[in-house]
Amino acid sequence: MSTELDLVIRNADVVTASDRFTCDIGVRDGRIAVLGNGLPRGVRELDASGLLALPGGVDGHCHLDQPMPDGMRMADDFFTGTRAAICGGTTTVIPFAAQEKGGSLKAAVADYHRRAEGRAVADYGFHLIVADPTPEVLKHELPELIHQGYTSFKVYMTYDDLKLSDREMLDVLDVAKQNNALVMVHAENADCISWLTEKLVGEGRISPRFHGLSRPAAVEREATHRAITFAELVDVPILIVHVSGKEAIEQIRWAQSRGLQILAETCPQYLYLTAEDMGLHGDDGYEGAKCVCSPPPRDPENQAAVWRALAGGVFSVFSSDHAPFNYDDAQGKKLGGLAQPFDHIPNGVPGIETRLPLLFDGIARGKLSLHQFVELTSYRPARLYGLYPRKGTIAVGADADITLWDPERRVRITNDALHHAVDYTPYEGIEVTGWPVHCFSRGELLVENGKYLEPAPGRGQFLPAGAPSLV
Amino acid sequence: MSTELDLVIRNADVVTASDRFTCDIGVRDGRIAVLGNGLPRGVRELDASGLLALPGGVDGHCHLDQPMPDGMRMADDFFTGTRAAICGGTTTVIPFAAQEKGGSLKAAVADYHRRAEGRAVADYGFHLIVADPTPEVLKHELPELIHQGYTSFKVYMTYDDLKLSDREMLDVLDVAKQNNALVMVHAENADCISWLTEKLVGEGRISPRFHGLSRPAAVEREATHRAITFAELVDVPILIVHVSGKEAIEQIRWAQSRGLQILAETCPQYLYLTAEDMGLHGDDGYEGAKCVCSPPPRDPENQAAVWRALAGGVFSVFSSDHAPFNYDDAQGKKLGGLAQPFDHIPNGVPGIETRLPLLFDGIARGKLSLHQFVELTSYRPARLYGLYPRKGTIAVGADADITLWDPERRVRITNDALHHAVDYTPYEGIEVTGWPVHCFSRGELLVENGKYLEPAPGRGQFLPAGAPSLV
Amino acid sequence: MSTELDLVIRNADVVTASDRFTCDIGVRDGRIAVLGNGLPRGVRELDASGLLALPGGVDGHCHLDQPMPDGMRMADDFFTGTRAAICGGTTTVIPFAAQEKGGSLKAAVADYHRRAEGRAVADYGFHLIVADPTPEVLKHELPELIHQGYTSFKVYMTYDDLKLSDREMLDVLDVAKQNNALVMVHAENADCISWLTEKLVGEGRISPRFHGLSRPAAVEREATHRAITFAELVDVPILIVHVSGKEAIEQIRWAQSRGLQILAETCPQYLYLTAEDMGLHGDDGYEGAKCVCSPPPRDPENQAAVWRALAGGVFSVFSSDHAPFNYDDAQGKKLGGLAQPFDHIPNGVPGIETRLPLLFDGIARGKLSLHQFVELTSYRPARLYGLYPRKGTIAVGADADITLWDPERRVRITNDALHHAVDYTPYEGIEVTGWPVHCFSRGELLVENGKYLEPAPGRGQFLPAGAPSLV
Amino acid sequence: MSTELDLVIRNADVVTASDRFTCDIGVRDGRIAVLGNGLPRGVRELDASGLLALPGGVDGHCHLDQPMPDGMRMADDFFTGTRAAICGGTTTVIPFAAQEKGGSLKAAVADYHRRAEGRAVADYGFHLIVADPTPEVLKHELPELIHQGYTSFKVYMTYDDLKLSDREMLDVLDVAKQNNALVMVHAENADCISWLTEKLVGEGRISPRFHGLSRPAAVEREATHRAITFAELVDVPILIVHVSGKEAIEQIRWAQSRGLQILAETCPQYLYLTAEDMGLHGDDGYEGAKCVCSPPPRDPENQAAVWRALAGGVFSVFSSDHAPFNYDDAQGKKLGGLAQPFDHIPNGVPGIETRLPLLFDGIARGKLSLHQFVELTSYRPARLYGLYPRKGTIAVGADADITLWDPERRVRITNDALHHAVDYTPYEGIEVTGWPVHCFSRGELLVENGKYLEPAPGRGQFLPAGAPSLV
Repeated sequence: MSTELDLVIRNADVVTASDRFTCDIGVRDGRIAVLGNGLPRGVRELDASGLLALPGGVDGHCHLDQPMPDGMRMADDFFTGTRAAICGGTTTVIPFAAQEKGGSLKAAVADYHRRAEGRAVADYGFHLIVADPTPEVLKHELPELIHQGYTSFKVYMTYDDLKLSDREMLDVLDVAKQNNALVMVHAENADCISWLTEKLVGEGRISPRFHGLSRPAAVEREATHRAITFAELVDVPILIVHVSGKEAIEQIRWAQSRGLQILAETCPQYLYLTAEDMGLHGDDGYEGAKCVCSPPPRDPENQAAVWRALAGGVFSVFSSDHAPFNYDDAQGKKLGGLAQPFDHIPNGVPGIETRLPLLFDGIARGKLSLHQFVELTSYRPARLYGLYPRKGTIAVGADADITLWDPERRVRITNDALHHAVDYTPYEGIEVTGWPVHCFSRGELLVENGKYLEPAPGRGQFLPAGAPSLV
Repeated sequence: MSTELDLVIRNADVVTASDRFTCDIGVRDGRIAVLGNGLPRGVRELDASGLLALPGGVDGHCHLDQPMPDGMRMADDFFTGTRAAICGGTTTVIPFAAQEKGGSLKAAVADYHRRAEGRAVADYGFHLIVADPTPEVLKHELPELIHQGYTSFKVYMTYDDLKLSDREMLDVLDVAKQNNALVMVHAENADCISWLTEKLVGEGRISPRFHGLSRPAAVEREATHRAITFAELVDVPILIVHVSGKEAIEQIRWAQSRGLQILAETCPQYLYLTAEDMGLHGDDGYEGAKCVCSPPPRDPENQAAVWRALAGGVFSVFSSDHAPFNYDDAQGKKLGGLAQPFDHIPNGVPGIETRLPLLFDGIARGKLSLHQFVELTSYRPARLYGLYPRKGTIAVGADADITLWDPERRVRITNDALHHAVDYTPYEGIEVTGWPVHCFSRGELLVENGKYLEPAPGRGQFLPAGAPSLV
Repeated sequence: MSTELDLVIRNADVVTASDRFTCDIGVRDGRIAVLGNGLPRGVRELDASGLLALPGGVDGHCHLDQPMPDGMRMADDFFTGTRAAICGGTTTVIPFAAQEKGGSLKAAVADYHRRAEGRAVADYGFHLIVADPTPEVLKHELPELIHQGYTSFKVYMTYDDLKLSDREMLDVLDVAKQNNALVMVHAENADCISWLTEKLVGEGRISPRFHGLSRPAAVEREATHRAITFAELVDVPILIVHVSGKEAIEQIRWAQSRGLQILAETCPQYLYLTAEDMGLHGDDGYEGAKCVCSPPPRDPENQAAVWRALAGGVFSVFSSDHAPFNYDDAQGKKLGGLAQPFDHIPNGVPGIETRLPLLFDGIARGKLSLHQFVELTSYRPARLYGLYPRKGTIAVGADADITLWDPERRVRITNDALHHAVDYTPYEGIEVTGWPVHCFSRGELLVENGKYLEPAPGRGQFLPAGAPSLV
Repeated sequence: MSTELDLVIRNADVVTASDRFTCDIGVRDGRIAVLGNGLPRGVRELDASGLLALPGGVDGHCHLDQPMPDGMRMADDFFTGTRAAICGGTTTVIPFAAQEKGGSLKAAVADYHRRAEGRAVADYGFHLIVADPTPEVLKHELPELIHQGYTSFKVYMTYDDLKLSDREMLDVLDVAKQNNALVMVHAENADCISWLTEKLVGEGRISPRFHGLSRPAAVEREATHRAITFAELVDVPILIVHVSGKEAIEQIRWAQSRGLQILAETCPQYLYLTAEDMGLHGDDGYEGAKCVCSPPPRDPENQAAVWRALAGGVFSVFSSDHAPFNYDDAQGKKLGGLAQPFDHIPNGVPGIETRLPLLFDGIARGKLSLHQFVELTSYRPARLYGLYPRKGTIAVGADADITLWDPERRVRITNDALHHAVDYTPYEGIEVTGWPVHCFSRGELLVENGKYLEPAPGRGQFLPAGAPSLV
C-alpha cells in the first residue's frame, strides 16, 4: 500500500457473480489494487453511494466491421461499435475474425487486427469464424492461432458462404478438443431452410414476415440435436449460440441432464421481439426487415421459455449478436436500394448498447437475480472466452472495468440516444428500469452520468485469450 | 354357399391381430369364403386341432437378388428367398427395387420384375429405393409408380451409393405426401460414420468388431431425430426401419408423444445379437463378419429396450432385413476372397426364415402377446404397405394365407435345416419354442409338417400395393 | 350348418378392433355361428348394406342405482340406464357394486344383484368398489369374489367416504396381484383438494366454477404418479380411470415407456367439456353444476392432448363414467332443493347414451380410426374386464351383440331424444356425425332405425368375469 | 485504515463461489476488513502461500444432541460435534431444534439453546423440525420464530414420530410462503416403507441389508414428486434434502425445467456408500448397521448420477446429515445392547468432519470445480439459510471464517484421527486428496497444521437467520 491509488470509488455496492458487499474500491495502474473500507485518498475519487458497482459487461457475440459478401456493409466499425458498447455498460467485446471460403484464417485475423487498431475504445478479443476447414487450417492455422490467444471459434450449420458439412464440423470439433478451444455453433439446418424458402418464394410469399416461416423452431432444434451429437462423439464441449426458444432449449436440457457439456447462449431479441415484429399476421410492409435475424424471433410462449431457462441455469451467456445493418441503406436492409425478398435481407439486429439494460430490466420484474445478471453478461463470457480473471469480476488484481448502475433509473430506449452508427433499433420505445450511469475501463472513466466522454479511439487493447474455463 | 369349398381347415384356433376364436375355415378360389363351425366337407380337409392358425407372415423388409455394386452378390434370389420365407411361415415378401445413382427408377422396377417372375414361390410386392431423386424421378417416375402400385419407398441417410442429402430427403418426403405414399428411412449419419471409420482404420483397428464402434448409437439417434424433423416439416408420416436400441427409441417415443406419425420397425438381430457377436471384447477373428449389419447389434440393455418397445407399441412392424451374403464367398463377406477391413464387409445378415420363430419364442417368455405377434409380423406390414385386406388377417374375403403353428414345438436353429441359399445363420444353435408346421398360400399347402412341398417356382404373384393404412 | 340360422345380417361391413370385411353374419342361439357370403336364409333377415357392423359397445365405467350417502339419489336404475345404453349402441355395461365403509363387500354385491335383476335390458357385469379393506375383505371376501367372477375393482384416492390410505392401496393391489384381478384407480389427492376447497370456501368462492380450481391438474397428476409407484412396488398392472388431461397423461406415458403396465381410461367429458362449462370466467350461475365432475374438465389444450393420447395408444378404454344426477332435483345437483356450494354438488355427468356417438364423431374429423373406436369402446374393455370373447368383437362364437351404424347420419344431441332418466345432458346441442341405427343384443333386435323396441326389463344377463386380458 | 489489523493472511489464493484471486486478507474484529496486496502488518500474520483460502464450510444439515425417543442417544453434543466440524473445515453448523408430537416448538428451541450454550466451538444457527403443526404452531409459534431468526424448517414424510400428513405439509408450506421461510423436506413415502418392511420382517429378512430393500428408490421418488406438487400448489420454494439417486433427481430436474423453485441437497453417503456397505449381496453380519441411513445408499450407477447432478447444477447444497450414533452402544446402533432388526436400527451416519474432504477429493478427479465446491458447501447454504453475507464467502465485511486447504495433501480417513465422539466412520480407509490444514473462525485460529487448538467451549455464537436468498 506504499504507493498512492489512482482512483478510489467510495461506498460501492459491489455485485459479482456470487457476492455482494459494500466497500471502497482502490485502483492502481488500471487494476483493482485493494477492496476495503476507509481506503486512503486516491488521485481521483468518485462516490458511488446509491449505485451498484458491477464488473463491466463482456459481449461475447457481436459483429463489427466484418467483411461482408454481396455488397453488404456493416454500419458499425470498431470505433462506433465499441463506443456504443461502452455507453451500454460493456467494456469488452469479442467480435469475429471471419475466414472466407478459399481464404486463410490467419490472413483474416491479420486483417481484422488492422480494422480494430486505432479505432477501438473498449478492450477486445477475437473469436474466429472457421468457414473453410482445409487441411492447412485444421493442422496448422487453427492450432497456431489457438496458442496465440484465439481460443474460441464459431462454425455455421447454415448460410451458403459459411456453412460446414457434418464432416467438417467433426473435424473442427476435434481440433478444439486437441487444443483446448471452445467451438460456438450456429445451429440451423441449411437444407430445410432453403427447401422452405423455395416453397415460400415460389408462392410469392416474400415479405419480411415470411422469414420466420422459412426457419421454424424445428429447423433450429434439429441442428441443435445434431451439434450435440457431434460434441458427444468427439467428446468436447460446445456452445450453442443465440438459442431462440423452447424446442432448442429442450434439446440442450436433455443433453445437459445426460452430463454432456453443452453450453448455450441467448440474446435480447429472443426476450423482446416476436414474429409479429417481422409482420407475422398479415403485415407485408418492409419495416419488418428491421427485425429479421436468424434464428428468427418466435412468440410470447417461447420468450417465456427463454426467460425461464435464463433463470434456471440452462444458459451460460447472454450476448447481443449485434449485427449492424442500416435499414434505409443500399448496403443494409434495403440491399441495392430496394426492398428485398425475405431471403435476401441482410440478417441481424443491432443491440450492443441495449443488451445490458434490456436484461437488467428483468431483475426488477423477478426474472433473474443481480448475480445471474453479472454471471450471464460478464463473468461467464469472460471465463468461457479465456479473459478471466482480468475481466468478468470485481476482485483484487482484475482490470478496473467497472460499471456503476442506477437500479432505479427508468429510461425509454430510442435510437436517437444510442451511440452505434445504425439508423434504427428494434427496441425503439421500450422502457427499462436500471441504467449504467458511469463506466470505467481499466480505471479510466469513459462515461459519466450517462455522458460519453469521448476517449481517444484506439485506447482499447487487444486481449489474447487463455484457455476456456467452463465452470 | 352354393359351390363346394376347395379346402376346409377344421377346428382352427384362429388368431388375428385382435381376435381369437375356434372354427372351421372354408376356402374357395384361394380366398377365405366362410368361417363357422360344422362347415360342409371340402375337397381338401386338414384338422388343425392343437395348432394355432395365424395369417401368413408378411416380411416388409428383405433383400432378394438385389443388384449390388463392387462385386458383391446376394446369395438368395426370388426362388431361394421366398422358399425360405414360406418355410419360416412368411407368405408375402416385399423386397426392394433399387434405383442406382444416375439410373431410372422405372427401369429398376422393370428389371426387378424380371428377376421375380418365374422364380417366386411366395407372393410379393415391391418397395422402391430412391437413390437419385432427380427432377424426372420426383415429378414423373415416382408419382407414376406410386399410382401403379408401388406405394412405399426407402431412402438412405448413409452409404455412399445410396444416401440422400437433407434436401433430397425433403423432396422425396414431399412426393410421398402429395401422392399418399410411405417413406421408409435408414437413419444413420453418414459423415459421422465415415469420420469414425477413418479414425479407426487409421489406428489399424479394422477387424469386424470395430464395425460397431464406427456406428455408435448416437449416430443412429441423430439421424432418427433429423428424419423426424423432416417428417414434421413436410407433415407426412415416415417409418424408421431397423431400429437398434434405446437411443433411437427415445427419439421415436418423443415424436409419437408429440402426435407426429413416426412409425418404426425393428428386426431379430436387435433382439438376439450383440456387439459381442462381432467380437467386441477382443476377438479379432473374422467370424464376427457374419453379424456385421447396420445399424450394428448393441448390448443386452439395448436388447431389453427393444423387447420393451415391441410390447409397448412403439414399433409397428417386425421385419427380417434379410440381406443374404455368403460368409465364405468372394462375392460375400469375404469379398474378393479375403477377410476385409470392417468398412468393406458387405452389410447385413440373413433372417427371412428365422424371423417369425425368433419372435414367436418371445410369447412363451412373456415378452409379447400372440396378438402383438400377428400385428407386428403380418397385419401391420400388410396395412402399411397397402396389401390389406388381401394379406394380414384371417377373415372372410382375405387370401387364404394361413400358417399353422405348433406353439409347443421346440426347435434348435441350424443352418443345415434352413432353406435359404446362404452358408450360415447368425442364430445357429438358438433354441426356440413354437414352429410353423403347415403353411398355406392362397389355399395351397406349401409346407406340410415342416416339409417343403416344392411348389413350382413362379407360383408367387406380384401384389400391386394400395395406399398405406396407418392405423 | 345342419340347423337353421335364427338371424342373418346381410352384406355387413364388419369392423373389429383390427379387421374390416364384408359378409353375411349368421346367428344361432344368440351367438355368431358363421361368417361368409351367400349364407342360407335365416329365420330373420336384415340387409345392412351401407351400414357398418360394429361389436356392441361395452361401457366399462358407469354408475347405475348405486346407493348414495347424504340424501343423494341416482336418476338412473338398471332399467333406464341400460335402456339408454342400448339406444346409444352399448350392449354391455359394467357398473359398480360399492362397499360402504364398515360394510361387507359381499353384501354389497348381493344387494346390487337385487337392483339389477328384473330391470336390466342390456347384459351387465359388476366391478367392485373397495372402500374398506379390512382383513376380512382382503383375506376372504375379495379373493372369493374374484373367483366368482368379479375380477375388477375400483379404489379411490379421494372422497371422504371412499378414499383409501396409501397403505390400504398397497394391500388392495397385492390382493389383485395374488388373485389376478385388475384395480381401477380414481387418482386425485384428497388432502390437496380439501386444503384448496377450504381456501376457496373461506374466501366465499363457492359457485360451481370454483370446483375446477379446487382440483387443478397437479392434484390429479400427483395421485397418478403415486398410484403408478404403488403398482411398481407391488408389481401389478393398474388402470387409471377418467384421465382428464396432459399432466396425468405425461405421468402415464412416462410409466409406460419404463415398461410398467399402467393402463388408462378417458371419457367424453374430457373431449367435449371445459372449465368454461362450469362457468370458469366469471359466470356464477348454477347451470355450471351440470358439468361438475371429478376430475373436472380442463381447457382446449388439454382436450387436444386427450385426443392425441387416444390416437397414440396411451388409453386402453373410453368409458362414460355415467353418474346420473338430476339437475333440478333435491336428490340431485340441487341437493336439498337448493343451489349448493361447489363442494356439496353431487359429482358426475350423465353420458351412457352419448358416449359412442361423441367419440365416433372424431373419426370423421380424423382424430382416430374406426378400428381404434372399436378397440377403445368395446374390444379392450371386454378384454380387460374378462368378458372377451363373448363380448368385444364380431367373430364366430361371440355373442351376437352387433350395432349397425350409419356413418353419415348427422344428429344434434338433445336431452329430449335420450333414453336415460336424467333431466339434462351436458352435451345439449352438439351435432355429431354417425349414429347407431340398429342394435342387436344376443341376436335380439332392440333398436330398429333408431327406435327403441321396448324389450322386457330383465332380459339383460349377468356376466361373470374371467381374468383380465391386458394385451 | 486507521486502526491496526488483527490478522493478515498473506498471499492467499482466495476462492469464492465464483472468483479466484491472490492477495492478502486483512482481518479486524473478526471480520474481513480489507483485501489487497502489500497490506500493512497485522497483529498476527500467516503466510498462506501454496494453500487455497476458502470460506469456512457451512453444514446445513446435521444433528447434534437432538433429543431422541426409544432410548436412543446421539453420541455428539454441541461440543464434540462442532469440534469435529471445525477440524473438517466447517465453521458454521445448522442442526435442528426438533418439536415433539404434542410439544411446543418454542420450548424445543429454548431447550436446544440450552444444549448449545457453553458447548459450541463453531458458530451455529438452528433449523426447526415441525412435527406437530397444530393451529397454535401454525398461527403463532412458527411465524414468531421465523421473525426471531429461525427461517428454515424441516418436515418429514416418513418416521412415525415425525411424519406429517399431506394436509399438514400444505399448511406448513403455506406458513413458509406467508412468512418467507424455507421448508426442507425428507421425502420418502411412509406407508410404502411400512408395507415393505412388514413383508420383509414377516419373511424373516431382518439383517441390516434389508433396510435398503424396505426403502427402494421408487419410494423416495414418489414422495419427491408429491412434495414438488405441494410446492407447486402453494407456490413456494422447497428444498428436498439428502437426495440419494437418479429417480429422485429425475423428478427434481423435471420440476426445475418447468420453472418451479425446487432446490435439492445431497450428502457424502450417496457419493461414497452403496447398498453393499449394508451387506446387500448376502452379508447378514451386523456391521452393515453402520451404514444404515435413510434414504439408503443405492448403487454405483446412482452414485454416478449424483456426481453428475452435482456438476450439473441440480443440487444447491451438499451437507453431512451427520447423525451420530455409536455402533457398539446400547443407545446407538445396538439399541438395548443387541443387534436389532433393520427397522429398529437408529438411522444415520456420522460425517460432519469428513464431509468437505470427501467432496474436495472430487475436484482432483474432475467431478466438480473448486467454485462448485465452495458454492455447494459454504456459499449456497449460507444464502439459503439466511446467514449470508456474514458466512459463505471471503469478501469485505464477511466474518473471517477461512479455511486454508492444502490441495495436494493425501489423507487416509480413519476414525482414530477424527474429532467426533462416534466410535466409527463409514468412510474408514478411504484416501482423499486435499485437506483443510488451518481453520479460522471469526479471525481466531482454531486449527493449525491440522492440529486442533482446543478453543474454549462456548466460543461459538448463535446466528439468527435472515430471509432465505434463493439465487
